[in-house]
Amino acid sequence: MSSFKEKFNALKEKTNLCVGLDPDLAKLPAHLSKEPAAILEFNKAIIDATAEYTCAYKPNIAFYEQYGLAGLEVLQKTINYVPNTIPIILDAKRGDIGNTAKAYAKAAFEDMQADAITLAPYMGRDSITPFLEYQEKYAFVLCLTSNAGSVDFQKPELYLKVANKIVNWNQEFGNCGLVAGATQGDELKKIRALSDDTIFLIPGIGAQGGDLETTLNYVKGSQNNFLINSSRAIIYADNGTNFAKQAGIEAKKLQESILAAR
Amino acid sequence: MSSFKEKFNALKEKTNLCVGLDPDLAKLPAHLSKEPAAILEFNKAIIDATAEYTCAYKPNIAFYEQYGLAGLEVLQKTINYVPNTIPIILDAKRGDIGNTAKAYAKAAFEDMQADAITLAPYMGRDSITPFLEYQEKYAFVLCLTSNAGSVDFQKPELYLKVANKIVNWNQEFGNCGLVAGATQGDELKKIRALSDDTIFLIPGIGAQGGDLETTLNYVKGSQNNFLINSSRAIIYADNGTNFAKQAGIEAKKLQESILAAR
Repeated sequence: MSSFKEKFNALKEKTNLCVGLDPDLAKLPAHLSKEPAAILEFNKAIIDATAEYTCAYKPNIAFYEQYGLAGLEVLQKTINYVPNTIPIILDAKRGDIGNTAKAYAKAAFEDMQADAITLAPYMGRDSITPFLEYQEKYAFVLCLTSNAGSVDFQKPELYLKVANKIVNWNQEFGNCGLVAGATQGDELKKIRALSDDTIFLIPGIGAQGGDLETTLNYVKGSQNNFLINSSRAIIYADNGTNFAKQAGIEAKKLQESILAAR
Repeated sequence: MSSFKEKFNALKEKTNLCVGLDPDLAKLPAHLSKEPAAILEFNKAIIDATAEYTCAYKPNIAFYEQYGLAGLEVLQKTINYVPNTIPIILDAKRGDIGNTAKAYAKAAFEDMQADAITLAPYMGRDSITPFLEYQEKYAFVLCLTSNAGSVDFQKPELYLKVANKIVNWNQEFGNCGLVAGATQGDELKKIRALSDDTIFLIPGIGAQGGDLETTLNYVKGSQNNFLINSSRAIIYADNGTNFAKQAGIEAKKLQESILAAR
């Protein structure tokens, strides 16, 4: 089985698109049932229609956990369904001390078989390294997020302190990237200036207001080590029986815009 | 059904002990099986033996998630087994943007029926308030943790900035507390000086090296709004068939030490 970085490197010349699989029963196409099992049917159709344009799938575990064990079973089946060539980033934003971090890493990487995970940095190094010790996996640590609350603690300085640590951890372990929101401007440039080797996971394009071209100028670096995430704009592009086809069209459009602008 | 604060207030004159239910199949008493189902048997015996001395139970979800869906089923059954008078704090350290935070809150409070949760502050206000909007529930936000990595970002200043925000959120919503490790000295005093009303959840006594008497001097305030957590020292006090009895003895001992020192 290939590592996250092998899968990512094999795809990144063709696409930097990350598709967020964040299901919400209230938003599913009207013809699907309102049971958690319908999410699996929905996800499979979305994956079939978008795989060709996708560099990574990112299911956020919260959207499955909200439907209890049935929801988490759907998450597992969704992960199993993704073609083996496309890496899966489990968006979980975990952060806990050593022993607990080990248990989370075991859950994400061994039990759920994700290729990568998102982490929160607040508890520092010993909450991160248990994930990095899985050499074939990858961890994206929150650095500068796209939401309003990013001003509370991350700015004006903390995000840069965090970015520096992430770059150090990546130098040491080789598999540590970061999350930075497309709604952040010059700050993205400052973070990329620290390292071209670190992979950036970028949410916030589209629905949250980030501009694609400006963002790419800041994050592409010399190696195109970035992923542009889109969730709602792709998976809920259409609410009818054509939802999957329309998702494919939107994914293709965004992938082409990324290639044109990078 | 009573709120977290009603349950806590009814118990806090008698005990401030929080028992961490962090199961590890490798550490279970030798006579129990090594299947996830054994954890439920173990937890039930621990709860039976310690309930009399306990102000809250705190299962850390990582230790269940590592055993997959079977583990999470045991977590749900453990929560259901706890006497209704004793609040349950789901140790999950969640932190994500608005919509996702809502999904996590739904999972913890509606599906799993926890009374409280632990949260990570990195993403700021809009990652916290969806939990605080559940008026009958309670959220403990990480402030100053007990691990080595706490020096990476929390010190020397961030923890105080976070503590101030938490106190503000508690003034606004009435149900926001904080996590501060017993291994931290004078810093605990500085945090308590901000508010006597905020409930402190304190890990790090015992195994991690925090001194009980010193810690209580710092955190008791005028209202005894604190919980001293102990996990391994209680639940793994004995590895034989007497494990539950011994856990009860250790819980009683710690509860009495807390009462004597507070």
